[in-house]
Amino acid sequence: MKDLKQITVIGLGLLGGSITSTVLRCFSGVKVVGYAHRPSTREKARELMITDEVTGNLKKSVADSDIVILASPIYIFKSIFAEIAESLKAGCIVTDVGSTKMLPHKWAQKYLPGHVHYVGSHPIAGSEQRGVEYSRDDMFDRAMCIITSTSKTNSAAALKIEKFWRGLGCHISRMSPAVHDRIFANVSHLPHMMAASLINAAKTDELKFAGKGFIDTSRVASGPANIWTDILLANDRNLIKGIDRVIKELSKLSQAVKDRDRKRIHALLEKARNKRAELINYKIEKKELL
Amino acid sequence: MKDLKQITVIGLGLLGGSITSTVLRCFSGVKVVGYAHRPSTREKARELMITDEVTGNLKKSVADSDIVILASPIYIFKSIFAEIAESLKAGCIVTDVGSTKMLPHKWAQKYLPGHVHYVGSHPIAGSEQRGVEYSRDDMFDRAMCIITSTSKTNSAAALKIEKFWRGLGCHISRMSPAVHDRIFANVSHLPHMMAASLINAAKTDELKFAGKGFIDTSRVASGPANIWTDILLANDRNLIKGIDRVIKELSKLSQAVKDRDRKRIHALLEKARNKRAELINYKIEKKELL
Repeated sequence: MKDLKQITVIGLGLLGGSITSTVLRCFSGVKVVGYAHRPSTREKARELMITDEVTGNLKKSVADSDIVILASPIYIFKSIFAEIAESLKAGCIVTDVGSTKMLPHKWAQKYLPGHVHYVGSHPIAGSEQRGVEYSRDDMFDRAMCIITSTSKTNSAAALKIEKFWRGLGCHISRMSPAVHDRIFANVSHLPHMMAASLINAAKTDELKFAGKGFIDTSRVASGPANIWTDILLANDRNLIKGIDRVIKELSKLSQAVKDRDRKRIHALLEKARNKRAELINYKIEKKELL
Repeated sequence: MKDLKQITVIGLGLLGGSITSTVLRCFSGVKVVGYAHRPSTREKARELMITDEVTGNLKKSVADSDIVILASPIYIFKSIFAEIAESLKAGCIVTDVGSTKMLPHKWAQKYLPGHVHYVGSHPIAGSEQRGVEYSRDDMFDRAMCIITSTSKTNSAAALKIEKFWRGLGCHISRMSPAVHDRIFANVSHLPHMMAASLINAAKTDELKFAGKGFIDTSRVASGPANIWTDILLANDRNLIKGIDRVIKELSKLSQAVKDRDRKRIHALLEKARNKRAELINYKIEKKELL
């Protein structure tokens, strides 16, 4: 990307730090600036040498950048957009890595000036870990990255952001923020609510008998509660519908058990098994699972 | 175990094959007999050399054994107990690796002769894979094995079975079959029902966007549908109660999202996160997770 001179990543957590590390590895000659609110994070980022420059001055951090990436919790986006608006140079592209996309699009539309372009991003990468110390420069290898755009999005800016993520190792799917939020309610945010509910339903003294199955089924519930609170609130309508659908499925299975209907139980379990086999085959084919 | 001359494993799947392999590795001088219904399984077992002898004759397979281990689907236990009853030698100990324990105890009581001892076993090991070809002789390293006994169980036999599993690498917890089935409804069978329901609630065209979170949360649903149908039927009462509890937790979280009650959502997610952290710390301390 020869017209890319500088990028800024706002928020140096697991994802933010992995973006700066990967840009340093993949794009030579691009200056990488990181903004972190906490002095301790800035210190760690310096020690880990995952940026060219790290600062606690938000406005200054974005002033000369061609691409600015928000990697902080979603609910801070609004105030960040407002605070950086006047410091962004004309033609700058702002994106983010938030797990929901309707709100970022709405806020960008409202707070960013007309000479700046906003495009939504959602790289499907990360883990239940948090903190810059877990950053990895191979986090985006073969990861999927969703790019969201609307009729108001500048096409050239969207293509440039696609190219950016491809350069970090991602493959791209483009969709609208509304479709994105519906899909990710079902494949990401709902599993989190289920994992948390499964653990909360269990008695503490029984948990020590949990095996690998329980540990995997509940893994995502170890994600940071503040980030996930934001996500659930940002995607509330889709999630409320999703929970209803899951409760319906659980009740179907429970009723089949009550009725001792072996054939119906088997059909429900076999259906799930086949759907998951399809999913796994697709992921292997796409080389997303290694 | 110097008084152990011969063991028989009935059913050479993932678990059965792993038991015979591990006995061959850990107990020198013990003859290991495997029974498999299907000729193709017997052939594979011979190729893999995971037994000293493999046979399709059930009665003959158990005749000279000191310990007989059922590793077939639970619902066949009844007919196996009935069929082997007269061929077992006096003092023989029969056990099984079924995922529920109330029914095996009930059937053993009914079908096994008085000169034979029954003890329940449930090694917490395995995976969503099936088939003798996935057998491993380190499957039980540091695994937990639950031993179930009642007031009718012969104490010496129970101690011998505990010693047997310890010899394969397990650490032991002893409990009644009723307590076992209640606990494992919550930490194993319920997660399976949730994983299956999560997948069945998702739209097929959305699944390709699933990331590692969804894949882990749903992993157990890839287990064999026939085995799991048996388990759900065998543990029906505990599971119906468990589903109710999980639905209550899901509704609590959903209601907090509807109410946009940030504090309540955060508290529920944080509670789950802390409970899981405790679980993981316990498992690390016990060296069950490596």
